[in-house]
Amino acid sequence: MELGGPRCAGLVLLLLLISCGQGRGADPINIWPMPKSVTSGKQTLLLSNDFVLNTQGSKYPDSSGILKDGFSRFLQVLRASHVADSNSSYSSAHFPVCKGLHVVILSPNDKLQYGVDESYKLSVTALGAVYAYLEANTVYGALHGLQTFSQLCHFNFKARVFEVRQAPWTIIDQPRFSYRGLLIDTSRHYQPLIMIKNVIDSMAYTKLNVLHWHIVDTQSFPLEIPSYPKLYAQTRGINVLAEIDVPGHTQSWGIGYPSLWPSTDCQQPLDVSNELTFKVIDGILSDFSKVFNYNFVHLGGDEVNTNLCWLGSHYELLKKKGLNESEAYQYFVLRSQEIALSHGYDIVNWEETFNNFGSKLSRKTVVHNWIGSGVAERVVAAGLRCIVSNQDKWYLHYLDTTWQEFYMNEPLTNITNPKQQELVIGGEVCMWGEYIDGSDIEQTIWPRAAAAAERLWTPYDKLAKDPRRVTGRLAHFRCLLNERGVPAAPLNGPGRVAPEEPGSCYKQ
Amino acid sequence: MELGGPRCAGLVLLLLLISCGQGRGADPINIWPMPKSVTSGKQTLLLSNDFVLNTQGSKYPDSSGILKDGFSRFLQVLRASHVADSNSSYSSAHFPVCKGLHVVILSPNDKLQYGVDESYKLSVTALGAVYAYLEANTVYGALHGLQTFSQLCHFNFKARVFEVRQAPWTIIDQPRFSYRGLLIDTSRHYQPLIMIKNVIDSMAYTKLNVLHWHIVDTQSFPLEIPSYPKLYAQTRGINVLAEIDVPGHTQSWGIGYPSLWPSTDCQQPLDVSNELTFKVIDGILSDFSKVFNYNFVHLGGDEVNTNLCWLGSHYELLKKKGLNESEAYQYFVLRSQEIALSHGYDIVNWEETFNNFGSKLSRKTVVHNWIGSGVAERVVAAGLRCIVSNQDKWYLHYLDTTWQEFYMNEPLTNITNPKQQELVIGGEVCMWGEYIDGSDIEQTIWPRAAAAAERLWTPYDKLAKDPRRVTGRLAHFRCLLNERGVPAAPLNGPGRVAPEEPGSCYKQ
Repeated sequence: MELGGPRCAGLVLLLLLISCGQGRGADPINIWPMPKSVTSGKQTLLLSNDFVLNTQGSKYPDSSGILKDGFSRFLQVLRASHVADSNSSYSSAHFPVCKGLHVVILSPNDKLQYGVDESYKLSVTALGAVYAYLEANTVYGALHGLQTFSQLCHFNFKARVFEVRQAPWTIIDQPRFSYRGLLIDTSRHYQPLIMIKNVIDSMAYTKLNVLHWHIVDTQSFPLEIPSYPKLYAQTRGINVLAEIDVPGHTQSWGIGYPSLWPSTDCQQPLDVSNELTFKVIDGILSDFSKVFNYNFVHLGGDEVNTNLCWLGSHYELLKKKGLNESEAYQYFVLRSQEIALSHGYDIVNWEETFNNFGSKLSRKTVVHNWIGSGVAERVVAAGLRCIVSNQDKWYLHYLDTTWQEFYMNEPLTNITNPKQQELVIGGEVCMWGEYIDGSDIEQTIWPRAAAAAERLWTPYDKLAKDPRRVTGRLAHFRCLLNERGVPAAPLNGPGRVAPEEPGSCYKQ
Repeated sequence: MELGGPRCAGLVLLLLLISCGQGRGADPINIWPMPKSVTSGKQTLLLSNDFVLNTQGSKYPDSSGILKDGFSRFLQVLRASHVADSNSSYSSAHFPVCKGLHVVILSPNDKLQYGVDESYKLSVTALGAVYAYLEANTVYGALHGLQTFSQLCHFNFKARVFEVRQAPWTIIDQPRFSYRGLLIDTSRHYQPLIMIKNVIDSMAYTKLNVLHWHIVDTQSFPLEIPSYPKLYAQTRGINVLAEIDVPGHTQSWGIGYPSLWPSTDCQQPLDVSNELTFKVIDGILSDFSKVFNYNFVHLGGDEVNTNLCWLGSHYELLKKKGLNESEAYQYFVLRSQEIALSHGYDIVNWEETFNNFGSKLSRKTVVHNWIGSGVAERVVAAGLRCIVSNQDKWYLHYLDTTWQEFYMNEPLTNITNPKQQELVIGGEVCMWGEYIDGSDIEQTIWPRAAAAAERLWTPYDKLAKDPRRVTGRLAHFRCLLNERGVPAAPLNGPGRVAPEEPGSCYKQ
C-alpha cells in the first residue's frame, strides 16, 4: 500500500473522478467564498514541481515568517492528497509552466487588528515560464490570496501534475465585513487543542477572521492566562476575541472564590454587592490585556436572572444606592465596562444589555445580537455598532438549521442608511458546546459556517439570491475540505447529516 | 491566545481536570487494551525535558527508521496537547527523573508479516536518574511497547511537567490473536487520504494490526497499483489486506471492460464464461503481488446471485462443462483461488464460499465469517482457518450496536478444542462505506473498534465478563483519543452518538 505515494494518492482520490464523472460540468468557477471580482479563461498551466515563493520587490520583511509559513501550508495542503510525478509525460512543450508565486506586499507592518486591510489582487497569466502574481497591502491580505490560489490548483490524475485550469485568471478581492466570526465554547465540554487548531485552519480556508472564545461558563472555569504567546491563530490571520461572561453564567467562579456566590445555595449571577467581584474581573482583564491584543473584549451580559440571588437584606450596596435588582444589573454591566475601558479595550456585550439600558452603554460598545432578527436595525439606529448572530439562523448547534438558511441570513436586513450600515461590523456563527465535543465539533461547524462565511465576505450584489445557485460550488468546497482532512458534513440534509447512498462527494 | 504554548495547552486541557475533578479515582490502571501482565506501584517519576531514545545493545539497525520515527511520534503525541515548562519548580530533588527510554530489540529483521512476534516487556523503575526499559523481539513489538508507554505518561498541570505515575511498572505483553483487523471501503464513498492515514494511526493506538482494504465494488473501481511503496502503514506495524471481490460486487469493472459484463443489461456477477475475466483477475493479482506483500489476499466471493445473468444459451462454457449456475459459482471461486495461489498468496474468502462448497476450497483458504454467529466453529471443525466478523456484533455501520456488544463478542465461542482454537486467527471489525464518508468515518469507527481491539489483544482470562467493569477505562481511552485529535464518540449511547449535557469527557 502506498499512502503518501504518488500512485496511491491517486488511487484514493481517483474514486472522486470515477464516481462523479466530470463533476465540474462546464467549467464553473469553484472558489469559496466568491471573490469580489473574477475573470478567467480556458487555458491550462502546469505547476512546476519546484514551485517557489518569490518576494522580490515586497516591502514586507516577514521577520516573523507569517508569509513563508503560509506558503509552506499552501504546498502542504496540495501535497497532502496528491504527489506530483517528476517524470510526468506532460511536457512544458504542450503547456506553459508556472514556476512559482510572486508575492508583493506593500506594508511592512503585520500588526493584526480589527479593520486590518485584507484585500489582495491575484493574477495568473497563460504565458510560458511565468510566476503567478499576488499583490496585497498587508501580509493578511496575501494569506487570503494564497487561500484563493490554492483553490485554483487541481491535480491531473492522468498526467500526475498539478495544474491551474481556466487561466488566465484576474482576481481582485476584499471582504464585505471586517468582523467575520466563529464562536467556540470550551466550558461545557472538553475541546481538544488539536481540534481547536483544526477549526482555526479551516476558518482560514473560508476567510473567517475572528475566533470568539467563550472560555468560561456555569459549568467550568478552564482559564489560565497564557504567558508565552505562540499566536498560532494570528499567523493565520485570525483574531481572538476573548469572552468573560458576567454577571450570569458564572457559577463556576465560586469554586475558586466562594464569596463570589451571593450565597452557597444561590450561586449566580455574581455577587453585585461584593467588591471582590470587581477586583477579580479587573484582575482577569488585566491579564487578558497582556495576551489578547484584539481591540475588543467580550463581557457577555446575557441571560442574567436578576430575580435570582440578588434579593434579601444583606445587599447593603443595593440598599445604600437605592438600586432595585434590574438597576443592579445595569450597575454591574456598566462598572464592568469601565474596567474593560481602563485596560484599553472596546467592549462587546450580548444584546440584553442594549435591550435593557442601551442608552447607558459606553459608546465604545459593540452590541452582539443573538436572540432574534431585527435587533441590528435598532442598535445602529441608536448609533452603536453591532455584530449579527441571530440564533434562528446562525447557531450551529441547531442541527435543523440548514446551510441554505445560514447562507441567506443577511446582516443588513432593513438597514438602508449607509452610515448605519457601516455600524454593522459583521456577523458570527456560534458553536455552543453543550451538545458537541471533540468527536463532532468540526462536522457540526462545516459546511454551514462556510455558507455564512460567503455571506460575510462576498459583495452583496454577487451573493446568490437563491441558494440553489451555489449548491454545486459549495459541494465542491465541502469535498475540498474533506480532502484537506476537515470532516465537513454533506449538504443533503440538516446539520452534521451522514451521507446518503453511495455516490460522488460532489453530489452529497 | 496561545494554542501550542505551555500555558494554553494547560488552559484547554485544564477543563478536563476541573470539570471531572479527580476522574481517575483510586489510581486504576488506565491502559487500553489491557496488557497480558501488569504490576504497578505508587511512586511518581518526572520525564526529563530532553527525554531521549537509547538503543544501546539493540540488535536492530533501524536502517528504515521505523523505531526512530515511532519514538518521534510518541513525543509528538505528548507535546501536541501539552508543553512542559523547562523552568518548572518541580525539582529532581523531590522526584526521580526518567531521562529516556532504553529500547533493546533482539531481531535485526523488520519484515512485517502475518504472525510476526509482537510481544514486548516494559519496565519503569522508580530509582533516580534512570531510563525506562523496553525490550522486544521485533521492532513491531517495540512499537506496541511505545504505545503502552505513551499511556503511562501524564501531564502535571500544576508543575507543567510530564510524569509517570504509579511507578514502578512491570508490563509483559503479547497479543491473543495474530489477526486484528479493521475493514475500510473506498468504493462507496470518497475516503480522503488524510482520514485513511488518521485511521491507520488510530489503529496503532489500539494495537489493531490489519487494515482490510475493500478497494473496489459495484459502485466504483478506484484502483491503481502503487509503484513506489511508501509503506506508511507498515512503519506503524499495520499489514494491508487487499481485497478484490469476485465474482459479485463487480459491476464497476465493466466501465473499463464492458465484455466482463454478462450483458449490458445484466452487469454482475462477472462473466464466468469469458476467459478475459480470469485474465484480468490474473493481471490485478500480479500487480497486487508486487505491492501488497501480506501473505493473504482477499478474493471476496460474497453475495453472488447465480440466478442473475448466468443464464441463457450463450453460456457455452456452462453447457460444455455441464455446470449449472451454482456449480459455475464454485468453478469461478476455485479458479480465482488457483490464480491467487500462483502469485504466492494464501486466500481469504467470505463465508458463502465455505457455506456452499467448503470441502472444495483450497486448504490455504481463510474463511471470513460475516453473516452471523456459529460459523467459526463449523469452519475450524472442517480444518480451515477463520476470521470472525459476525455482522450482528462487529459491523460498525450498524449504529445501534453498542461498544458493549463489540467488547463482548467472543471469537472462540463454542470452540474448546485447542487445535481448533488455533485455527481462529483473529477477528475484524468492518466499516462499510455506504453511509459514511470523510465527514464521519472516524467517529463511526471509534471507540467501538477499540472495544473489539481489547477482545482481540488481551488474554481471555483478563477480559471483563461484564463490560461495566471497563467503562471507566475505555472512557479514559476515548478522551485520550480526542486529545490526540481522533474524534472518537462518547460511550453513552449508540454508535457515533453526540455528547449529552455538559460535563467531563471521562463521564460521557
